[in-house]
Amino acid sequence: MEKWFTTNLRVRYKETDQMGVVYHSNYFVWFEIARTEMIKSIGMTYKDMEATGLLMPVVDVNCQYLVPAQYDDDLIIRVAIAKHTGIRTDFRYQVIRIADQTLLAEGETKHVYVDCDFKLQRIDKVLPVYHQKIIDLYKLQN
Amino acid sequence: MEKWFTTNLRVRYKETDQMGVVYHSNYFVWFEIARTEMIKSIGMTYKDMEATGLLMPVVDVNCQYLVPAQYDDDLIIRVAIAKHTGIRTDFRYQVIRIADQTLLAEGETKHVYVDCDFKLQRIDKVLPVYHQKIIDLYKLQN
Amino acid sequence: MEKWFTTNLRVRYKETDQMGVVYHSNYFVWFEIARTEMIKSIGMTYKDMEATGLLMPVVDVNCQYLVPAQYDDDLIIRVAIAKHTGIRTDFRYQVIRIADQTLLAEGETKHVYVDCDFKLQRIDKVLPVYHQKIIDLYKLQN
Amino acid sequence: MEKWFTTNLRVRYKETDQMGVVYHSNYFVWFEIARTEMIKSIGMTYKDMEATGLLMPVVDVNCQYLVPAQYDDDLIIRVAIAKHTGIRTDFRYQVIRIADQTLLAEGETKHVYVDCDFKLQRIDKVLPVYHQKIIDLYKLQN
Repeated sequence: MEKWFTTNLRVRYKETDQMGVVYHSNYFVWFEIARTEMIKSIGMTYKDMEATGLLMPVVDVNCQYLVPAQYDDDLIIRVAIAKHTGIRTDFRYQVIRIADQTLLAEGETKHVYVDCDFKLQRIDKVLPVYHQKIIDLYKLQN
Repeated sequence: MEKWFTTNLRVRYKETDQMGVVYHSNYFVWFEIARTEMIKSIGMTYKDMEATGLLMPVVDVNCQYLVPAQYDDDLIIRVAIAKHTGIRTDFRYQVIRIADQTLLAEGETKHVYVDCDFKLQRIDKVLPVYHQKIIDLYKLQN
Repeated sequence: MEKWFTTNLRVRYKETDQMGVVYHSNYFVWFEIARTEMIKSIGMTYKDMEATGLLMPVVDVNCQYLVPAQYDDDLIIRVAIAKHTGIRTDFRYQVIRIADQTLLAEGETKHVYVDCDFKLQRIDKVLPVYHQKIIDLYKLQN
Repeated sequence: MEKWFTTNLRVRYKETDQMGVVYHSNYFVWFEIARTEMIKSIGMTYKDMEATGLLMPVVDVNCQYLVPAQYDDDLIIRVAIAKHTGIRTDFRYQVIRIADQTLLAEGETKHVYVDCDFKLQRIDKVLPVYHQKIIDLYKLQN
């Protein structure tokens, strides 16, 4: 059984479009918020990671939209680690409307680790303690 | 051989993040611009389509990021129709940096047709002329 | 002595730009969040207001940036009513970094009330109870 | 008589909100685009300026909204230098709807020059040739 890490947020007016619902690209911003908070929960901040010169750019994303989120909705963003190796981490996400627990969207983001010149780095070499914590979290979540 | 519809744009400062490259969700905004312009090229505007009460929400997206786009880059956004039925249209995209013709990213967006209450609609019934034009464009592009 | 209504938020990665700080236009999005929550605190939601066909578009804004907000900063957004008449409401704002209580920015937004066709409306006629609550809040805050 | 530098753009769907018009903070993004292109027109790119370690952060902005811009509108963004000293440059802007030449909004942004640590710099010392070009442009525009 899955164990997600969860973050709450409320839909901003700016995130809507003239269709009256949230513009689709904003879900990836929410995914990033949940990912940031999950990383923080295991004792690393993405801010600190960047301060060591390590970046985690996105190389692949997808999202399926089931029910549109709307202005002022209270949402849960769930995130779990889908896969983790020494060079790559994949996350998956769910967006839940709190009011009725409806699943609004699901998606994934896949990341590599690079230095400031965008040269690939091994997370298991550069940040071995953090690497181990991600592995532990992965086992817990899957 | 493929025939893409192309749109040019220049990367905005607002589209960068502190990694010094374009934030990943913005590519979907660019895809939307290219899609809008392609639809316009076949004699329909998305604005007019909405005025008839027909919306084209996104139900599925994906994007693969190969090389990061940067501030002030001149880009070509290519779009082609990947699939079209009476109830659904799928588009695929490429982002090309003009300076060296490098492919920066590729992606897809999948859309359904709905009315103002988000009830599914058949584009072949509601806008048959436009439906036929999309089919013709699809044959040309694939 | 002033009595502000306060809302907390954390800076998103998407809100940064390649200067390494928050892009300036995002402060207006934060102002909107604080304004929305303050309106909610007096028993009206902006969502409900729009559902009655009343919109509150922005007609004038300004912001002074003192110290740049950065990724992952925890912030307080303070809002107070600067002026309120039957046809117009002005709000003013402060952005405070929680860690050291530094004032990062100050600004104002001015709003009118319109119907769906953007024709001017009198809030004291359309929503008299809400109008009175704003006046009461204004007296409390100033 | 004024001589503006002009840039054209078309309103993106992402820039609208559920009020059916452009969300107000986006005008500052448009101002930035016009400012960038004007700087480019005098032989400097803002990208190059940043590469020399000089940043031009915004310290003060304002905007007055007269008529709302809408999705797919073709716009002219006009920019002129309002003031320039060795340590500061102020720009003013107009947003014009091309279809009927309606003035939609007017605004200003004020900037200082800083290095990568956000320490104030004198543009007349760091980039004297560019400084002179701005002064020449200012005389032409005012």
